[in-house]
Amino acid sequence: MKILLIGASGTVGSAVKAELSQRHEVISIGRKSGDFHVDISDSASIRQLFAQTGKFDALVCAAGSVNFVPLGEMDASHFDLGLQDKLMGQVNLLLIGREFANDGASFTFTSGILNRDPIRTGASAALVNGAIDAFVKAAAIELPRGLRINSVSPTVLVEAMGSYAPYFRGFKPAPAADVALAYAKSVEGLQTGQTYIVG
Amino acid sequence: MKILLIGASGTVGSAVKAELSQRHEVISIGRKSGDFHVDISDSASIRQLFAQTGKFDALVCAAGSVNFVPLGEMDASHFDLGLQDKLMGQVNLLLIGREFANDGASFTFTSGILNRDPIRTGASAALVNGAIDAFVKAAAIELPRGLRINSVSPTVLVEAMGSYAPYFRGFKPAPAADVALAYAKSVEGLQTGQTYIVG
Repeated sequence: MKILLIGASGTVGSAVKAELSQRHEVISIGRKSGDFHVDISDSASIRQLFAQTGKFDALVCAAGSVNFVPLGEMDASHFDLGLQDKLMGQVNLLLIGREFANDGASFTFTSGILNRDPIRTGASAALVNGAIDAFVKAAAIELPRGLRINSVSPTVLVEAMGSYAPYFRGFKPAPAADVALAYAKSVEGLQTGQTYIVG
Repeated sequence: MKILLIGASGTVGSAVKAELSQRHEVISIGRKSGDFHVDISDSASIRQLFAQTGKFDALVCAAGSVNFVPLGEMDASHFDLGLQDKLMGQVNLLLIGREFANDGASFTFTSGILNRDPIRTGASAALVNGAIDAFVKAAAIELPRGLRINSVSPTVLVEAMGSYAPYFRGFKPAPAADVALAYAKSVEGLQTGQTYIVG
């Protein structure tokens, strides 16, 4: 399979690359690193990416930004980044990318634990994660040509606990390699409309 | 209690008014009808509303628009209405309205069944509903002064089946009066961070 991996240099992305590149051609894509570059918050940038990569069999997005701000300090503007980048960025990867997807190709997006198990400052992240998991479930039933779509919803990563531990007290972190397995299940399996919870 | 009811003239809103006005002062608010008017997609309009209503003990939003379009015909622009109106409209009712909320006041928002049980053309509705339910769960843990927030997620209404039936084949509709009970539970109970599923 030819797999486009967006966010390839991140902690999750690196683990996904290690897992999938054992068996497939993985093309690394990042905002500033990798074989190709993309800003997923920009439709034109997404379109340019696919013009460069050509057709593909699977797309994995392990990228997406949101703001973490105490709810008491938030106004609507603090939600813009998550809506534009992590949420509509991934939605647009489907809406635009489907034109370049081979029959039976899969899209695997990333949400996260915070809509299921919220933390302080996590209101925007929760909102976006809930939206992604819902979108995947709904979009799956309307996709033609055997196209599939799933999301992976990981807990905090072992590898991220150095900086994130104060925000995730009491959470049992998962190794990125375990999270990567969920992406392999989505890409190499046949399920669609699923959210794979890890941790 | 002084209850602000946004979307009071709708099918759900009318039933909520019938239920809550038996025991409380319900102020009817609509885009163009009711005691006060608001366009929830416009922060300035929301702020103006609260300047007119003054302090309150409960806010119920039974309003919010999304586009219903076959996924194959959708681009990002079709998601704008749902993001701006039903999603961020309700989020902004909390972010702005909390300044006018008495201690212990509640916010009750409306999502819907489509993120749990998707239909054709429902991708934007599903995304928005998932986002609302997630936001409610996350925001609840950060609210001060005993403020509460819940969502009600109804199935299709008996009263709406005249026009909606072709989109909801096989769904068991719920009477609006049953849906109204969930709003009463949210407003008159003490729970927070909940999504009340009806149907």
